[in-house]
Amino acid sequence: MTTIPEFLIRRFHELGVDEGFGIVGDFALKLFDRLAKFGFPVLVTADEQGGAFAAEAYARIRGLGVCAVTYSVGGFKVVNATAGAWAENVPLLILSGSPGLAERQGDPLLHHKVKNFDTQLEVFKDITIAQAVLSNPLTITQEIDHVLSQMIAHQRPGYIEIPRDMVDVPVHDRVGSLVIDLPKVHPTRLELAVEETLDLLEASGDAVSVAGVMAVRRKLGPELLAFTEYFGVPMATTSLSKGVILETHPLALGVYMGAVSSDSVVQQVESAKPLISFGVLYGDLVMGGFTDHLERGQVIECTDTHVNIGFHTYHDVPLWAFLPALIQAGKQRAYQEGGQVVRRQNTFTPQAGKALLVESIMACIAGFIDHKTRLIVDPGDCLFASVDLPAQTLTLASAYYATMGYAVPAALGAGKADPNTRPMVLVGDGAFLMTGLEALSAVHHGVYPIIIVMDNQGYGTQRPMIDGPFNDIPALHAEELTKAFGVGTGILCHTENELHEALTQAKNSEALFIIRACVPPKTYSPGLVRLTNALKKKV
Amino acid sequence: MTTIPEFLIRRFHELGVDEGFGIVGDFALKLFDRLAKFGFPVLVTADEQGGAFAAEAYARIRGLGVCAVTYSVGGFKVVNATAGAWAENVPLLILSGSPGLAERQGDPLLHHKVKNFDTQLEVFKDITIAQAVLSNPLTITQEIDHVLSQMIAHQRPGYIEIPRDMVDVPVHDRVGSLVIDLPKVHPTRLELAVEETLDLLEASGDAVSVAGVMAVRRKLGPELLAFTEYFGVPMATTSLSKGVILETHPLALGVYMGAVSSDSVVQQVESAKPLISFGVLYGDLVMGGFTDHLERGQVIECTDTHVNIGFHTYHDVPLWAFLPALIQAGKQRAYQEGGQVVRRQNTFTPQAGKALLVESIMACIAGFIDHKTRLIVDPGDCLFASVDLPAQTLTLASAYYATMGYAVPAALGAGKADPNTRPMVLVGDGAFLMTGLEALSAVHHGVYPIIIVMDNQGYGTQRPMIDGPFNDIPALHAEELTKAFGVGTGILCHTENELHEALTQAKNSEALFIIRACVPPKTYSPGLVRLTNALKKKV
Repeated sequence: MTTIPEFLIRRFHELGVDEGFGIVGDFALKLFDRLAKFGFPVLVTADEQGGAFAAEAYARIRGLGVCAVTYSVGGFKVVNATAGAWAENVPLLILSGSPGLAERQGDPLLHHKVKNFDTQLEVFKDITIAQAVLSNPLTITQEIDHVLSQMIAHQRPGYIEIPRDMVDVPVHDRVGSLVIDLPKVHPTRLELAVEETLDLLEASGDAVSVAGVMAVRRKLGPELLAFTEYFGVPMATTSLSKGVILETHPLALGVYMGAVSSDSVVQQVESAKPLISFGVLYGDLVMGGFTDHLERGQVIECTDTHVNIGFHTYHDVPLWAFLPALIQAGKQRAYQEGGQVVRRQNTFTPQAGKALLVESIMACIAGFIDHKTRLIVDPGDCLFASVDLPAQTLTLASAYYATMGYAVPAALGAGKADPNTRPMVLVGDGAFLMTGLEALSAVHHGVYPIIIVMDNQGYGTQRPMIDGPFNDIPALHAEELTKAFGVGTGILCHTENELHEALTQAKNSEALFIIRACVPPKTYSPGLVRLTNALKKKV
Repeated sequence: MTTIPEFLIRRFHELGVDEGFGIVGDFALKLFDRLAKFGFPVLVTADEQGGAFAAEAYARIRGLGVCAVTYSVGGFKVVNATAGAWAENVPLLILSGSPGLAERQGDPLLHHKVKNFDTQLEVFKDITIAQAVLSNPLTITQEIDHVLSQMIAHQRPGYIEIPRDMVDVPVHDRVGSLVIDLPKVHPTRLELAVEETLDLLEASGDAVSVAGVMAVRRKLGPELLAFTEYFGVPMATTSLSKGVILETHPLALGVYMGAVSSDSVVQQVESAKPLISFGVLYGDLVMGGFTDHLERGQVIECTDTHVNIGFHTYHDVPLWAFLPALIQAGKQRAYQEGGQVVRRQNTFTPQAGKALLVESIMACIAGFIDHKTRLIVDPGDCLFASVDLPAQTLTLASAYYATMGYAVPAALGAGKADPNTRPMVLVGDGAFLMTGLEALSAVHHGVYPIIIVMDNQGYGTQRPMIDGPFNDIPALHAEELTKAFGVGTGILCHTENELHEALTQAKNSEALFIIRACVPPKTYSPGLVRLTNALKKKV
């Protein structure tokens, strides 16, 4: 026999998860208490939304993240983060306390209840891969394993609800570790897909690969690097997988994002013969508002379930089986090719008194990124501007779902998931206003990010589309927040040398830094300008 | 012919709604733009959650509130506020932009999309009374009217989604004003219910009434006052309807909340013969964790659909028809009775250097409440502590659903809905951390609340249940936020005279005030202590 908290913790530890994020409430008190006592702390955040974003970021790094909340008033606050986790294939587990089964008798109006006791479950059915309300001691551990297995097999969020009177109930235990129902691999199709791919790679000297989000989720970083170096094929990433291989690697092209990317990246990716993609999510934003020019006939598309080559498909050949097999088979053929990458040089010398622009902010930041830096980027022009930054670790961004306010709380999750890297957050003034107080939560739990608030006075990315009072937001002196926190350093920058000095100071310190870098309204990153022009041509 | 924004605005103005709250996004840009141009501004907030809470508060005062958002990343952030609006019978309309119908062809991965283009609709089906995705120009105005009519008839939230390519499309117009399908009234049952009630009122001289949330939603304030004065029956309210009649009225008992209320209120309400309730929501929190002692046989219970007297029910006799009929019939019988209220005297003289306690904070605040003050109270001990405050306008609180972080953004909505009252916000340090930045949104839109942050260093209400690290939160110097805002005054108070001086200063100013009133951890309001004791006895 075991109990729900003990079994959950066993599975969490087995899966490499040491802590959760979220906010308690009376229906979740016993759950939080037992989790803490049995060795799984749930780290408090300013708002539940922040807890969910932190857990989601943790999941991107560790492979699973846990957000624990109370019933309804907690659960419903994390619907957006969970929906985003669905959209971007993140195994985010929502663990919710709820009213006890006994106290539900007679259907009383207990606080937090909405239509009925299942309203929260019904909502999460729409946005998670598997759900369980734990009520039957005989099947509880089986149900937990089902949810976890589905989450990992499909890389989607899941939902587990624990009535408060079930927390200490002895439940039937399960022996052994979690069995994950990964989809089956068809060996013949795998072999043929590998052979055809090798033939195509051999027939052309202009291959380029694009590594996408599912390659990250399946933890194929080492295989991607091996493929790149062994076949000598230059590799681009998408904004969802930026940094999955070192962007300072001689064969790393950087982020391909349609027209947002610089001309050299676009030219190399779009003229590749063949282009081979590993787990790319072909979303509009990921493809620069569909300004990509990828001809299907030229593409070898490896997904989480199948491989497309031109106009035919090898079913049941998932990426995680295909890529290692490809490398292995290539070795037997003694395949070797020399790749070549045209890289834009990043050189930046700050000029005293020169007003900041998005481009110079990025050029300045680039000099402060090393292998101990984790870029975390909020949507909007921060995302577009960041494509050229030389990431040396996996960058985190809501780069397809594009939910604003993600980056600051994600820094907490990332900092806990990987204490060896320090989060460097790029966030706009609009997004910072949403969740900026979570910087204090990060410090509360020993994470000290460098936060760069790119302040263009409103929802700048939208102004070129339609401008109006709805794009003007309350002006926050973000750098002054450190006074309200009582910790950290806040710095306001208008010029290149001010920013360079601020970043130097931040880099030499281990404290929280909030650096507000002001740019004139209606100035944009080169990437956004390229995108706007390309979209105009399209229309 | 008309267009969607024009028709919506016509209905909004007809229903007394002059502005909405929320945050734009690319799928909602055209909608926001046309709404603004045609005379319906959507006021920006720090986060969408704040916009929804603001609109929900607006709805409590005006009868309808509009929260406008973009697709998914906006809509899913307001699920919690919408669920709360369901639970507490608030007609909150969620107006969401969404991808154009044309661009949905071929089911592309457009940013913000989750499972499919209907995921957001599916979620809102679970928490709203009526929904419409506006796609058919012939039926669009009919569908809008259906949603609005259902919302008002049932006092529940609703959902309207506008694909961005539908915003300017000419649509079939409707003549005349909105027809609301209120439930039918059965005239004979109404007459008999009124007669039986009058007989019971005549037979006893100890009647007391309790006015609840549906009496507020049906705008029966004047009728409640007429009933009270004409029949001379003392009236209590619930925490959801506090202030619906002047609490300084000689016949006003204040808030009845089971054991949370002071002994005199409990004694008078629980010994009433008969007790007559008008639209009370018998939720656990509303009834002080069900520590009420209301004998059903003694109660005349008037609801939004029927009247219960003891053990029988008059169906199809809604409160809004019953109460006016009762007053009318009483006049014909020349009914007159003298009521009597035992009221606790509120006297408070601040003592220099005396450390603040929850009780003294409330006693001090009581002296600053007048007919131009709107109390807005966050859940937790602020709610329990506030029961004795002498409200002179309708108090706003998430007093059944109990979602934390409601009060600060609600101040914006309340201030716009009723510019003649100034919001006075009571909020704990935990809740303030969730949405405190919305104080800046209030100022941005010309609302200047007095915010009193009752700081007991964590989730104080939960500590007596189970304490642990999950109840300890990041410490925010809330009063220092005004520095980051660049407006307003922040004051830190530890003693009675400091608080009294701060409130005096705030009252004499028209600016934003954030007053952090510190109390020792593990000190509670008298109401919470009474509740805790009563619950212990129950167990």
